[in-house]
Amino acid sequence: MAKVDADQYVDIMRFYAHQMSLLDAQDVTGYVGTFTEDGVTHHVHRGEKLEGSAAILAHATKALPHYRTVVVRHWNDHYLVDETEDGEGFTVSYGSLVTLTDGDGRVRFESTFAVTDVLVLVDDGLRVRSRTIVRDRPAER
Amino acid sequence: MAKVDADQYVDIMRFYAHQMSLLDAQDVTGYVGTFTEDGVTHHVHRGEKLEGSAAILAHATKALPHYRTVVVRHWNDHYLVDETEDGEGFTVSYGSLVTLTDGDGRVRFESTFAVTDVLVLVDDGLRVRSRTIVRDRPAER
Amino acid sequence: MAKVDADQYVDIMRFYAHQMSLLDAQDVTGYVGTFTEDGVTHHVHRGEKLEGSAAILAHATKALPHYRTVVVRHWNDHYLVDETEDGEGFTVSYGSLVTLTDGDGRVRFESTFAVTDVLVLVDDGLRVRSRTIVRDRPAER
Repeated sequence: MAKVDADQYVDIMRFYAHQMSLLDAQDVTGYVGTFTEDGVTHHVHRGEKLEGSAAILAHATKALPHYRTVVVRHWNDHYLVDETEDGEGFTVSYGSLVTLTDGDGRVRFESTFAVTDVLVLVDDGLRVRSRTIVRDRPAER
Repeated sequence: MAKVDADQYVDIMRFYAHQMSLLDAQDVTGYVGTFTEDGVTHHVHRGEKLEGSAAILAHATKALPHYRTVVVRHWNDHYLVDETEDGEGFTVSYGSLVTLTDGDGRVRFESTFAVTDVLVLVDDGLRVRSRTIVRDRPAER
Repeated sequence: MAKVDADQYVDIMRFYAHQMSLLDAQDVTGYVGTFTEDGVTHHVHRGEKLEGSAAILAHATKALPHYRTVVVRHWNDHYLVDETEDGEGFTVSYGSLVTLTDGDGRVRFESTFAVTDVLVLVDDGLRVRSRTIVRDRPAER
């Protein structure tokens, strides 16, 4: 896989800053707009695959009431970026730590995750074509 | 608002690495030196506005004894950067998770925050002209 | 010390993304391969110095069984990068928060740390020549 250059890498960092800001602001319409129309999210650890941005939006909208009493934030690190083999996009892998802050300012943690995305370039920027999320599980319990 | 280029974005990342290192080292003089003379910090959630670097320094110095028994660290993510409308600086928004580590190595969390800064370019680099800090609050308690 | 340019800074960010991914995947052979043959790790807080990649590998391999029941992740922030005085490499300082996630998805924290590395450029990329790790300790207990 070809290595991306510094400009592309920074563009990708900024894409995530933007997308995660939308997600953490619970702006589900804005968030889903960062996926392609045929975008897919796959929560491997709960065997849930959502195909197409309409399905992602419906699912996210339904989940919103569960998050009325907390602020959710995603803290990502160690983005590994490679061009996809067809040269039309990027594969990006990273770790994600999810915090839930309640009305008293207390912070809880909703596990840690390994995420792998395929990003594609469309007219006006990057979009997620697929997102695969795996909750961290040790080798032994 | 105009988009900044990769070099500017990286410069801004490095500014924060430097500024947060000073803050986390409790080097209040160094930290306050990263603000303009007329710099402002606004802690919205406690209704506290400090105007001018002398006021910021006095406040930070007074707070130091509270932090003798912990190491404070700020973990920031998802920097959104835009040029200001006058083209003289940058508006930067990000999330911040604050940890307090005690003498036994135990880590506590001092809530999560949304921060919005206005940075300006002066002779020898970037400075904060204003910093607005809002503690995360869910829609409902 | 000379300032590195944006391309070098991004290269260094990517080096850490790669190295930390290997470490967090418990790929000790891959991880140790990111050090030079004469690479050194120094855990100052426990007075432990490992000299040479064979010693680092032996130590990491021995520690693996302790981490069978957790996923370890390192969350780094605020990378300060300078060229070394001899111009042959980089000094990089940063903070590190270590999480341990168990089989039920619960997240614990293994203190916070200050890390200082010396990186050198070899034929095919960056390598760590020395890593100095200090567990955060407040001024007073």
